[in-house]
Amino acid sequence: MNKIQVRTLKGFRDFLPREAKKRQWLINTLVSVFESYGFEPLETPALEYAELLKGKYGEEEKLIYEFETKGKDKVALRYDQTVPLSRVITQYQNELVFPFKRYQIQNVWRGENPQKGRYREFIQCDADIIGTTSPIADAEILKLVLDIYKTLGLSVTIKINDSENFKNLDKKYVAAIDKLEKIGESEVLSELTGKGMAEETARKALSDLAKKPQTEKIKKILSTLKQMGADMNCIAYEPTLARGLDYYTGIIFETVAQRSSGSLCSGGRFDKLIGLFSGNDTLPAGRQVPAVGFGLGFDRTIEVLEEQNLLPENNISSKVLVTIFNNGLKEKSLEVYSFLRNANVSCEIYLDENTPLEKQLKYADKKSIPYSIIVDGNNIALKDMEKREQQNLSLKEIIEIISGTI
Amino acid sequence: MNKIQVRTLKGFRDFLPREAKKRQWLINTLVSVFESYGFEPLETPALEYAELLKGKYGEEEKLIYEFETKGKDKVALRYDQTVPLSRVITQYQNELVFPFKRYQIQNVWRGENPQKGRYREFIQCDADIIGTTSPIADAEILKLVLDIYKTLGLSVTIKINDSENFKNLDKKYVAAIDKLEKIGESEVLSELTGKGMAEETARKALSDLAKKPQTEKIKKILSTLKQMGADMNCIAYEPTLARGLDYYTGIIFETVAQRSSGSLCSGGRFDKLIGLFSGNDTLPAGRQVPAVGFGLGFDRTIEVLEEQNLLPENNISSKVLVTIFNNGLKEKSLEVYSFLRNANVSCEIYLDENTPLEKQLKYADKKSIPYSIIVDGNNIALKDMEKREQQNLSLKEIIEIISGTI
Repeated sequence: MNKIQVRTLKGFRDFLPREAKKRQWLINTLVSVFESYGFEPLETPALEYAELLKGKYGEEEKLIYEFETKGKDKVALRYDQTVPLSRVITQYQNELVFPFKRYQIQNVWRGENPQKGRYREFIQCDADIIGTTSPIADAEILKLVLDIYKTLGLSVTIKINDSENFKNLDKKYVAAIDKLEKIGESEVLSELTGKGMAEETARKALSDLAKKPQTEKIKKILSTLKQMGADMNCIAYEPTLARGLDYYTGIIFETVAQRSSGSLCSGGRFDKLIGLFSGNDTLPAGRQVPAVGFGLGFDRTIEVLEEQNLLPENNISSKVLVTIFNNGLKEKSLEVYSFLRNANVSCEIYLDENTPLEKQLKYADKKSIPYSIIVDGNNIALKDMEKREQQNLSLKEIIEIISGTI
Repeated sequence: MNKIQVRTLKGFRDFLPREAKKRQWLINTLVSVFESYGFEPLETPALEYAELLKGKYGEEEKLIYEFETKGKDKVALRYDQTVPLSRVITQYQNELVFPFKRYQIQNVWRGENPQKGRYREFIQCDADIIGTTSPIADAEILKLVLDIYKTLGLSVTIKINDSENFKNLDKKYVAAIDKLEKIGESEVLSELTGKGMAEETARKALSDLAKKPQTEKIKKILSTLKQMGADMNCIAYEPTLARGLDYYTGIIFETVAQRSSGSLCSGGRFDKLIGLFSGNDTLPAGRQVPAVGFGLGFDRTIEVLEEQNLLPENNISSKVLVTIFNNGLKEKSLEVYSFLRNANVSCEIYLDENTPLEKQLKYADKKSIPYSIIVDGNNIALKDMEKREQQNLSLKEIIEIISGTI
């Protein structure tokens, strides 16, 4: 047997219990909001035929993890969830219920250069509505984003715009304008001129954009959103918001935390993409499959929740540790444990009858278990691990305290 | 853009909403039982350095998905969760709390020959206790398995044995005896003789095994399990139970459903494996890290729950669909929707104001949404989708009905 390599691959992460629980908590919260809006889960495999992913991601294609299996299949690891979604839409079009409201929370893999906040394996969390062009769908997507962050206790602003505002601008210029917030006006101007736009034209383009009134489409979506009862103070129309991607065909938006920087969640309407991806015999190439949705930055959301102390710190598993004072008291301790379990109390018994009590209590401390029980002859003491106080009680009283306070 | 390949890789699966929800329900149930026993989640990356996995799986090693990345890293997809666990134990030994009780529910990938019930991507669900040799830990693992299936409503038997019972038998013979239940005594006898054992010796070995009394270890574990309040009718001592794997060092067990065939969940004590895997500078090679645990067959458990109608069929997301009778009633419908959402009712509004009502109701049916609301001028009707009955009600009455019945 060779020696173990005690290393995690660069850009990959282990999640030990404390971290894993926080992430699980966020996933559960997201799922509960998604489902309350009737969005349903979809899961696709980690591996796809490599050719499915080819020609879909432009220059980023080089970041795809691809290889040939021993069975000579050319495969690739999931790179995003939109291409698999397109495949699913085509493959199961007669089984799905349209408008298809799906969420998907799975890992994707990208051979990025690892750096702070950027990983090679990370959770993508997408929600999309497929099959309707109605502004009610656009509004519902915005309402869903607002409710997610409201549920998480995080104050956010959704900046919105209509991709229509850029229809007369070349793609390369839009990419520059997209950086406005990040690098500032003068930098964007020099990037635009560097890409061949006359300086005066560039200035005028930016100032024209900034003055653009809301399009009819945006007005309709926002009035619907208001009728849905959304807090409109969280919505900001921003005519210079560009979003780097060129596949949007209507509303585009970006969600930012009011007290932290960077984008949390962004999306828009993309009525042509899925039809384009699905160019096959069943679904004629170019057939439009309208869609609106967003991708939520899972890691960034965790970071901001952490910064603002909005993550539950003590996501405790068990509520009480039954200690074993000594080997002779093992049976009595097991009896107490059995009683608690029968009463559906989440609890643990210390898993070694020969460990000194002090060390057993340390175990409870390290795992943030709020109570310990010390069985000593006929007395049963409940110890509050935070207050470091203990008192002799009956089992009935113990159950009342434990059930009542947590 | 090339044409999409509308195919899922052989041995890989898409999970559409109905299926995905069932699986999510099972995961949530497992997690809740694990956590009530103080087991905590661990997550490791999908990719590891390939050399970590080499030399660990014997002949099965050829089933590992491995490849070289563009950055020249030799990597492999997670094949099981025990090798990554061993790495984690070594890498984070000062951060983990011992005895370390962890569960892990992640996908693994194996290049198996796909066949009924065998996939190339499947969920592994493991729970292990690391760092104690106490029989209390063995008993807790058995108690946990019993509680999992009790919570799922499935009647099971755990067959248990002590791997000690096979200590004088060559590994190749044990592998044959392991098939006793599956292929019967005469087949096992012919396999044993085929492998070189004299027929008489083989007969004697089997009959000796069948008569072996419980070892002291087993007795101790079972008496502890009883003291923990377990239902001992679900435990069966079976001295011929072998389990194919040769790394067990104490109790071995296998859980079977009382009204279905095949193994649901199996495990045992493996005190030498983790230390062996962790042979590196930090943790001296051969240092024992005692462990006891099990792997639960996720797909098999789903199948058996399905067979016995124990899966929640209607894992509904939203409770009511607000329809839009016509474009003129859109605003009034949105108002009703807004009212319901403010009252924290999980609900949907139909996402197209131009769709005929009949089709909207069909949407509710297909998604198993139990109620629809039809707004018509000043009347608001609640339609029970199963009974096909509707009545005009106030919003307050509607909320009472919806909240009360689900």
